Amino acid sequence: MMEQKGELISFRPDIKVVDCTIRDGGLVNNFGFTDEFVKKLYETNVAAGVDYMEFGYKASKAQFDVNSFGKWKFCDEEDIRAIVGENNTDLKIAVMADVGRTDFRKDIIPKKDSVIDMIRIATYVSTIPAAVEMINYCHDMGYETTINIMAVSTAKEEDLKLALDILAKTPVDVIYLVDSYGSLYPEEIRRMSEAYLKIAEAAGKKAGIHAHNNQMLAFANTIEACTFGVSFLDATMSGMGRGAGNCFMELLLGFLRNPKYNIRPVFKFIETHMNKLKEEGNVWGCDVQYMITGQRNQHPRTAIAFTAEKRTDYLNFFQTIIED
Amino acid sequence: MMEQKGELISFRPDIKVVDCTIRDGGLVNNFGFTDEFVKKLYETNVAAGVDYMEFGYKASKAQFDVNSFGKWKFCDEEDIRAIVGENNTDLKIAVMADVGRTDFRKDIIPKKDSVIDMIRIATYVSTIPAAVEMINYCHDMGYETTINIMAVSTAKEEDLKLALDILAKTPVDVIYLVDSYGSLYPEEIRRMSEAYLKIAEAAGKKAGIHAHNNQMLAFANTIEACTFGVSFLDATMSGMGRGAGNCFMELLLGFLRNPKYNIRPVFKFIETHMNKLKEEGNVWGCDVQYMITGQRNQHPRTAIAFTAEKRTDYLNFFQTIIED
Repeated sequence: MMEQKGELISFRPDIKVVDCTIRDGGLVNNFGFTDEFVKKLYETNVAAGVDYMEFGYKASKAQFDVNSFGKWKFCDEEDIRAIVGENNTDLKIAVMADVGRTDFRKDIIPKKDSVIDMIRIATYVSTIPAAVEMINYCHDMGYETTINIMAVSTAKEEDLKLALDILAKTPVDVIYLVDSYGSLYPEEIRRMSEAYLKIAEAAGKKAGIHAHNNQMLAFANTIEACTFGVSFLDATMSGMGRGAGNCFMELLLGFLRNPKYNIRPVFKFIETHMNKLKEEGNVWGCDVQYMITGQRNQHPRTAIAFTAEKRTDYLNFFQTIIED
Repeated sequence: MMEQKGELISFRPDIKVVDCTIRDGGLVNNFGFTDEFVKKLYETNVAAGVDYMEFGYKASKAQFDVNSFGKWKFCDEEDIRAIVGENNTDLKIAVMADVGRTDFRKDIIPKKDSVIDMIRIATYVSTIPAAVEMINYCHDMGYETTINIMAVSTAKEEDLKLALDILAKTPVDVIYLVDSYGSLYPEEIRRMSEAYLKIAEAAGKKAGIHAHNNQMLAFANTIEACTFGVSFLDATMSGMGRGAGNCFMELLLGFLRNPKYNIRPVFKFIETHMNKLKEEGNVWGCDVQYMITGQRNQHPRTAIAFTAEKRTDYLNFFQTIIED
């Protein structure tokens, strides 16, 4: 079994906390955040010592109607600048671009003209060649890059190994372990972290983790990966994110021992802004239907529909799921 | 670092699942469960293959007014029998008795006259001598016994070690690791499981875990302990329990691979009975105030009061807590 990288109390300057509230939380409310919310979140992240804030997607305007989504689905340069100005802070700005759903050659401009620092490229194992093309493009434009391989809990081990080997040869800075279905247990996270780290570190890269909370393990899996050497840690305020949501920022910052992080502004932000989002009818978080899709290692779309219909016939849902 | 006891997929016949819904959940609703609820829960546990069901406390009627609590605070023999009859099932019946809050010599009758199988003795490190007296008494009466050492996250390591050594010499069957404040992280659970198991196994005893969900780690800590050899696993329906609650039964049974467990009746019970309890105004579960007391390794009583007052000024609460 692999060794821990540091004990609980030790200081790990390599750790980077990434706030994904707007991006993954945007999947809950169709990116309909007010400018005030985004501005306050930005200020909170700066004050809390968070390392990166992901503003949303760079989605293709040819594929997605700009009138059907909030602006953070597209993350136009001027919209980000309206929040952060020149961003003269220690917080770096990230956006996500999905392979096949972005006009990256048109919409991702040279870094010298952008306030964005990092492009996070989301891919499946099956679309790695297209992802490599995007990595090379974004790297050449001057950005830091991450590759977020989604749904790895259903990927063949051999395919994943091959994908990691290919990615090791690219200029990507961070390789992310993404538990899209919230189906992985801590002991699996340990094994997978080991595999990711071995390949990433040999190539001078970092590893990251993006966890989902279907089985109430997002925080546990995040700190488990962290304990074993994964250093880019995704979290969201109140765990806001698609379906069961993500790792809670307030739990993660309470765990980390680096004095650069300050949890107080996070508590203030949650009481002022996150509770309001919930009162307005936005629903996310671990519920029985998400436990079921997580346990069965399935995409949460059926559980999201079940939630939207306000159903609670869990046993019927379970029977449907296992007969799929 | 210690080795895992079996991989995820392996079969562990030593595992015993203990349902604590009435006992720990009773701390939420003052033990005010209807007979119908308790009967259905009993039938659910039998159908689900759960190994033990804890009915409540054997509390002293001299210390606690029977008119101020539901009957499961006291667990009279006839009240249990009204639910289970002679309990001709594979499910065993447990009750808890707190050191110093029970008239055990009066209220715990010989096993041959009781439908109860196991007495769980709850103690602090400081009351170990009195606990040993109770262990000996209950063992001599013919019961299986567990010792649940509470609040170990604040105990001195030396005192805890001494306590475990003393307990190893008693006839107790199971020694429980209890994370009363929900403050322990998985890596601490691994270290403590190792310490408990080493002493328990050398004395021919089992180890158990009772986790709280303040930092959303109750399930993660339970399966972490399980993975490393702890075999008595406490859980409650919908995680119902004091404050932030406990490990969710529906998550635990989804994790375990032993085919004797059947999760379907649990889903049915939750949709029919647990959601109703919530609608009736019973409140438990992980919220920011519990994360804060968990992070600070404090008793949740301040967070419970904060919850009862329906407050959401988390930052004020945090400031008060850290200035204590």
